[in-house]
Amino acid sequence: MEFSFPLATHFDPVTGTIEGYPLTARRLSDLQGSFADEQAYQRALGMGDPLVYTVSGFEVPAEEGQLSYALGLIMPGKIGQEYYLTKGHFHAWRPAAEVYIGLAGEGFMLLESEDGSQNQMLPLRPHHAVYVPGHIAHRTVNTGSVPLTYVGVYPAQAGHDYDAIARKNFRHVILELDGKPSMIERSELLR
Amino acid sequence: MEFSFPLATHFDPVTGTIEGYPLTARRLSDLQGSFADEQAYQRALGMGDPLVYTVSGFEVPAEEGQLSYALGLIMPGKIGQEYYLTKGHFHAWRPAAEVYIGLAGEGFMLLESEDGSQNQMLPLRPHHAVYVPGHIAHRTVNTGSVPLTYVGVYPAQAGHDYDAIARKNFRHVILELDGKPSMIERSELLR
Repeated sequence: MEFSFPLATHFDPVTGTIEGYPLTARRLSDLQGSFADEQAYQRALGMGDPLVYTVSGFEVPAEEGQLSYALGLIMPGKIGQEYYLTKGHFHAWRPAAEVYIGLAGEGFMLLESEDGSQNQMLPLRPHHAVYVPGHIAHRTVNTGSVPLTYVGVYPAQAGHDYDAIARKNFRHVILELDGKPSMIERSELLR
Repeated sequence: MEFSFPLATHFDPVTGTIEGYPLTARRLSDLQGSFADEQAYQRALGMGDPLVYTVSGFEVPAEEGQLSYALGLIMPGKIGQEYYLTKGHFHAWRPAAEVYIGLAGEGFMLLESEDGSQNQMLPLRPHHAVYVPGHIAHRTVNTGSVPLTYVGVYPAQAGHDYDAIARKNFRHVILELDGKPSMIERSELLR
């Protein structure tokens, strides 16, 4: 069976790599504007520039019916009370859904509708899956003490739109409150 | 965020169920014609009708961009030298790909082109994924000593075509030969 790429892949759970596929690493300095507490962000940056998350993608040509997938790894950590997170994205092709499957560690996904009026915080850990419908912004956070790893599967033509998030961020944040992960409106933090 | 179904699911790794979603159980008697060694099949049936595999499906409306997924669990076992297997299928909508992710146990996927002339045997176990391109028949086998569990993600409009397999089965079989899993042509068995 001849294809232009190998059909079987192996995940390296320590490095977060799909072996043989590119890895994108996001350090704290790459996440300017993502965290709610800007003072805590600057203090943390003053002490170093730790790795926050990696994404390794198996991407195939954007043809109808094809699927791509990515392995994500988020390190444990917080900026202020807010857990380490991914930038988050919409799909450029808005109808594209995504299925996330937790492999190790524990965290949550934050989902928001385009106008921010609807949202959910859903568990992502082993034996759990999260369905992200089309038209929904999604971000992943690690609320545990070890790396959170997961796979996301999406239509090959989905594309990633980070700009909409970069402009106004998510309306909600996931924080440690009273020792446990909680979702609150960002505007509540300013009061 | 209002959807007609919950977006977060939990897998029960013992029962192979996506909790709250339907489970299809295939017993040995449901697999008439799937195994190469008909005498061994009849002998095994004479001793009982064990569970061979289950599939639990999270299926959403077949709209563009949507994805469905299924949790599969195959019990360990053999009929003659041939490992317990799924019936296998094409997608009714042939361009639909599928991504399989191994969760526990160890096994392989058997992939074949529509004319049977091209094939691959690919590992499916934790930290491994298998990409099934469109137009490719696929079957899963458990070559280990514990249940093999995995998730398959596919376009919601994929559909399942079991009839093409039921008519002529796969051209290849995965057997235990010299103590290890091997793929050979079915026609070799008749010599």
